Amino acid sequence: MILTVTLNTALDITYRVPSLRPHSSHRVSEVTERPGGKGVNVARVLAALGHEVTVTGFAGGPTGREVHERLTGTPKVTDALVTVAGTTRRTVAVVDAGSGDTTQLNEPGPQISPDEWSAFQDVYADLLSSASAVALCGSLPPGVPVGAYAQLVRAARAAQVPVLLDTAGEALRRGIAARPDLIKPNADELAELTGAHEPLRAAQDARRRGARAVVASLGPDGLLAATPDGLWRAAPPARVQGNPAGAGDSAVAGLLSGLVEQLPWPDRLTRAVALSTATVLAPAAGEFDRAAYEDLLGRVAVTGEVTAA
Amino acid sequence: MILTVTLNTALDITYRVPSLRPHSSHRVSEVTERPGGKGVNVARVLAALGHEVTVTGFAGGPTGREVHERLTGTPKVTDALVTVAGTTRRTVAVVDAGSGDTTQLNEPGPQISPDEWSAFQDVYADLLSSASAVALCGSLPPGVPVGAYAQLVRAARAAQVPVLLDTAGEALRRGIAARPDLIKPNADELAELTGAHEPLRAAQDARRRGARAVVASLGPDGLLAATPDGLWRAAPPARVQGNPAGAGDSAVAGLLSGLVEQLPWPDRLTRAVALSTATVLAPAAGEFDRAAYEDLLGRVAVTGEVTAA
Repeated sequence: MILTVTLNTALDITYRVPSLRPHSSHRVSEVTERPGGKGVNVARVLAALGHEVTVTGFAGGPTGREVHERLTGTPKVTDALVTVAGTTRRTVAVVDAGSGDTTQLNEPGPQISPDEWSAFQDVYADLLSSASAVALCGSLPPGVPVGAYAQLVRAARAAQVPVLLDTAGEALRRGIAARPDLIKPNADELAELTGAHEPLRAAQDARRRGARAVVASLGPDGLLAATPDGLWRAAPPARVQGNPAGAGDSAVAGLLSGLVEQLPWPDRLTRAVALSTATVLAPAAGEFDRAAYEDLLGRVAVTGEVTAA
Repeated sequence: MILTVTLNTALDITYRVPSLRPHSSHRVSEVTERPGGKGVNVARVLAALGHEVTVTGFAGGPTGREVHERLTGTPKVTDALVTVAGTTRRTVAVVDAGSGDTTQLNEPGPQISPDEWSAFQDVYADLLSSASAVALCGSLPPGVPVGAYAQLVRAARAAQVPVLLDTAGEALRRGIAARPDLIKPNADELAELTGAHEPLRAAQDARRRGARAVVASLGPDGLLAATPDGLWRAAPPARVQGNPAGAGDSAVAGLLSGLVEQLPWPDRLTRAVALSTATVLAPAAGEFDRAAYEDLLGRVAVTGEVTAA
C-alpha cells in the first residue's frame, strides 16, 4: 500500500451562497463536507487511480469522529489516524454561486501532546514496514516539533521506503535536510526556501539542500522537474478556468503513483499535470474530472530542458 | 420548570479573524462553540437567573451530538431534545477583531419526517404537564408544518400553561391565531404581520389578531408593551454600543421569568430591558454582563402610555 501522513487533518466544509457580503447575514443554500488535509486529499486521488492507500496522522473530538466515519466509507482507503485529545480543525470554504470565487476560513489545529506525538511515531514505524511509498503532507499542528518531518523522512529512508515531502516554511527547510526522495513545492514555497525567484535555479538549489528530486508546481503553466535523471517541463495543452483547490494534492498523487509503478519521469509528470488540470476542471473542489484526465493524458507536453548551470 | 421549544436548534460557531476579505484566505485566531437556536439561548439566560429549565425540540447528526453534550454540562438546564435522523445545522459568525462587525452564515436545518414531528408532539405534551410556562422560539426546520406553532400554542392552552411565541413570518401569522399569551416581535416582524409601521398601532393590531399581550422590541429604544393591563414603554438609560446578537432572546427570558414570578408588567419590562441591554454590553455574543444587568435594573425607565385608539 501507499501511506499518506496528514498531521493536521481537517473537516473541510463548503458553503454555497449567492454572494458573500461582509457584515451581513447569509442563508447557505448548499453544504458539503469531507475529510481533508493534504495527505487525505492525496489518498482519495490515489484510491481513485486504483491504489490501496493507508491514511495516518491525528484526529480528535467531534470533527475527528466525522473524519473517521467518512474515511471508513471510502473504498481502497484504510483509516490509521491516531486519536488525540484535541479537536480536529474545520476549514470553511464559502463559494459565491455566481462567480465561483472562494473565501477560505481555516481553524487552527489541535494541540498535540508529546505522548501523542510519540504514539504516532510508533504507528508510523509499523505502517512503513508494509508501505511501497510514503507522502508527508501539509502543515504541523501546534505541539508537533518543527523538525517532525526530518524525523519522519529519516525513518522512511531507514526503512527503504521512498518518501515525498509536501510542506512549506520551516517544516520544509528542516525536512529537506533529511534527504527526501522528492519535494513538490509551488513557486512561492520554493522561493521562500531558496531565496531564488527563478524556478529552475531555485529547484536546482533545493536539490543541493538535500532533495533527491524537486518537482515545482508553476500553477497553470504546469510542472518543472529537477531530478537525477534530467530536467523537464510539463504543461497542459491550454490554460483552464476553474477551482485550483486540491490541484497540488492531485499532482502529488500523480507523482507518487508513477513512482510506485516505476514509470519514467516524463510519464509521471504527464500523469501529474493531467490529474491536476482535471482537478481544476471538476465542479467540486478537490475532485478530478475522470474524462478530462484521460483526455489530457495524451495532450500534456513534456520537454527536456538543458541547464545552463 | 420553564419549558423552551427550539425546533431548529443549531451549533453556533464564532470565528475571530483580523478582517474578513472576500475571495481570500483567513487564519481563524479564535474559535468558540455553543448550542444555539433561540429557545436554547432563552434557556441559558433563564438558568442564569436561577430558574430550572427544560429544553426540547430536535437535534441530530454529529452537530446534534455536540449540542446534547454541551447542554448536559449546563447547570439547571435539562436536555429533552428529540433525536432525529437529519443533522442539526451550524451557524458561523465571523467577527472582525478590529471593528467587532459580524458576518453571519446560517446552514439550512435538517429535514424533519412526519414520524419525528409526531414523536415530538408526544414529548411536548408530557413536558407541558410539569411546566410553569413555555416559550416557542425561532424558525421551523424543513418538514415541520407551517401551522406547527398554532398546534403547540393550542396544546399549551389546553394544559393551562402560559405560552410565549417568538417567531416570524407565516409561522407567526398562523401561531397568533391560536391565541398565545404573549408574542415578542421586533418592529420589522410586527410590520410584516400587521402591515402597520407605527409600532403602537401594529401592537394593538396584533392583539386583535389573537395575542393576549404583545411586547415589541424596538432595538436600542427598548420595548413597547400592549397588554390587557395597559400600555407601557420601557427604555434603557442610554443607547449602548456592542453586539446585539441574543439581545432579543434575553428579553424573552426576562419576560418569561417575570411571568412565572407573577411580577407586575412594569417590573417584567424592566427586567427584560436590563437583560437585553446587558447582553449587548457583554463581550461574548449571547452572554449577559451580570454587573451591568444589576446596575441597569434600577435605571430602566418605564412609562405608561395613553392610547388614542
